[in-house]
Amino acid sequence: MKLTFEKADIVKAVGIVQKAVSVRTTMNILECILIDATTDSILLTGNDLDLAIQTKVEGQIIEPGAVAVNARFFSELMKKYPDSTITLEVSEDNNCFVTCEKRDCSFMGMPADEFTEIPDVKKEKSIVLSQLSLRDMINQTIFSLAMNDFNPMMTGELFEIKEGKMRVIGLDSHRISIRNLTIDDAETDVYVVIPGKSLKEVAGILSQDAEQEVTVSFAPKHVLFELEDTKIVSRLLEGKYFNVNQMFSNDSQTNIIINRKALIDAIETDMVFIKENDRRPVILDIRDNLMEIKVSTGQGKGKEEIEIQKEGEDLKIGFNPKFLIDALKVIEDEEIKIAFVNAKSPCFIRDDDMNYMYLILPVNFSE
Amino acid sequence: MKLTFEKADIVKAVGIVQKAVSVRTTMNILECILIDATTDSILLTGNDLDLAIQTKVEGQIIEPGAVAVNARFFSELMKKYPDSTITLEVSEDNNCFVTCEKRDCSFMGMPADEFTEIPDVKKEKSIVLSQLSLRDMINQTIFSLAMNDFNPMMTGELFEIKEGKMRVIGLDSHRISIRNLTIDDAETDVYVVIPGKSLKEVAGILSQDAEQEVTVSFAPKHVLFELEDTKIVSRLLEGKYFNVNQMFSNDSQTNIIINRKALIDAIETDMVFIKENDRRPVILDIRDNLMEIKVSTGQGKGKEEIEIQKEGEDLKIGFNPKFLIDALKVIEDEEIKIAFVNAKSPCFIRDDDMNYMYLILPVNFSE
Repeated sequence: MKLTFEKADIVKAVGIVQKAVSVRTTMNILECILIDATTDSILLTGNDLDLAIQTKVEGQIIEPGAVAVNARFFSELMKKYPDSTITLEVSEDNNCFVTCEKRDCSFMGMPADEFTEIPDVKKEKSIVLSQLSLRDMINQTIFSLAMNDFNPMMTGELFEIKEGKMRVIGLDSHRISIRNLTIDDAETDVYVVIPGKSLKEVAGILSQDAEQEVTVSFAPKHVLFELEDTKIVSRLLEGKYFNVNQMFSNDSQTNIIINRKALIDAIETDMVFIKENDRRPVILDIRDNLMEIKVSTGQGKGKEEIEIQKEGEDLKIGFNPKFLIDALKVIEDEEIKIAFVNAKSPCFIRDDDMNYMYLILPVNFSE
Repeated sequence: MKLTFEKADIVKAVGIVQKAVSVRTTMNILECILIDATTDSILLTGNDLDLAIQTKVEGQIIEPGAVAVNARFFSELMKKYPDSTITLEVSEDNNCFVTCEKRDCSFMGMPADEFTEIPDVKKEKSIVLSQLSLRDMINQTIFSLAMNDFNPMMTGELFEIKEGKMRVIGLDSHRISIRNLTIDDAETDVYVVIPGKSLKEVAGILSQDAEQEVTVSFAPKHVLFELEDTKIVSRLLEGKYFNVNQMFSNDSQTNIIINRKALIDAIETDMVFIKENDRRPVILDIRDNLMEIKVSTGQGKGKEEIEIQKEGEDLKIGFNPKFLIDALKVIEDEEIKIAFVNAKSPCFIRDDDMNYMYLILPVNFSE
């Protein structure tokens, strides 16, 4: 195999596919990316068996072939090359020679046929949406996923598509985050759970440009994201997802409208008083036209008053401040609505159009 | 005590004095900063007993007094306050109340008299120089200090002033870094060793503005750095410093002139082949008009040719690449001169005016 490509192009491509390469494994081949020039384009692939990413590199194929190279090593080496045209030549026994200007490097690759190719997904159902929308929906829910896999279904997000509506749900045992999006497709019907780890990498690759589109295709065991030069395949989580509908209630007793930024500032100040691993809550003390956000710990006491619009009962309720902050930070509205039932029931942060909904369980507190 | 100050001023001042506060200690008072408003200005002090920093905060003293507060907690709390005027009130029993707009916080301080005041340095000898010069001299030598205190004198830098010349030396068992500066003071005669830890913090506080000056005063056991609103006192290291003069030789057999940036690029590329904790050297293969920089490890081989100007013998010599890079990165010259004796003796990187001199020991290698 003999190829030439520009330094900037190879660095960018390796950066993309490297997201699907295992960092620590006991199998060398899993730490590799595949460089495949057996067809008419140069394709790079990373595949950690849960997630596979393939992208095209601009360049010239002088002699076709394929090789697997250690991802981290190859990435670091390419970054050190000058901004110029690089030649990669690979011998029959996978010895790789990289030359550029007066720099000559050589290292051993691995046989391409040991590399697990990107799964061939049969596209049964597909939707097209803007990369920005998908990116936002992931980023605005993914923080709620459980980090450990005590319950594996909590490590993934539900993607539900029905009657032209797409719903993305992330949850753990303390909170639920939901984003809704109207899509231009009334036919497709989907109900799958995608691993959070895959979605995090997908969100990192998606463009922030609302003009660019992504095609998402669903197969029984895989989901495929197709961008212009890149495709990403993730396996799906198998199992029954949670029935979240039954967790929502509409009998709120207290409804407030509050400035989001002011609430974030007050809670973050209170968090200074809470040492790591201390489970002290912040307390929202809701009265007419006024909410007090307060905390009391061994470190001291914090208190701030914020003006609110309120309907219904007065209420005093405690929350893990991190859960409130996580949700408040991904909402973009200046004023937000929060509905409360009582001090033992979850609160709901949601907009009128139901674009977003965040459910957060309260915590007990004593004063 | 009752004070008012602006949020930006207190955050800046706490950030400065906090550099002299111990992070982990078993004594609460060592984790504190002192807020002292017993005179006509508000002074903040941090003191970890090796290093003490005091700075002035603009503000109003409504009622004089002093209190010690936990540095990290107070710093974080102040950062969360609005950009506005903050009032700090402290009761007889050191209960602190911080108010600003609609935010009220309270926490316990500690008695000011438990705090160890900044040492009162008797200024026996003083020099004045630009903050930028001192900062550069520290940053351009401090990387050579030994991290552990196997030999305590290697954890400090020699400051030697004699006949209008100031010399700063940092070294460990593999290298020596020296910077020289002509100062406008032929009288002062100084020979002290300042802890590297103190110098690192001093360099972080010094301005990058060449117009601003710093007065450095020397006492038998302390050094004092005086800036406009801030003073820094460090204890000195006691013991005999190394006689470095005997380590330099002038009988070089090979002298080269090389482009500094090209040499850095070549060595950094070779470093990609060297795994952490692997002690493989890079090899400089010096021939007429050409130097090959090369490496060979289990990962592969790297090689680059750089044009040089050379006088004297051909030479093949191996170095720990990190030691070369550390020195090359703090030099500002585009072209540098390196002198070699033989493959077993140190190399010297120095300019004609002797503003800087870096000695680096070679390592053995086999090919």
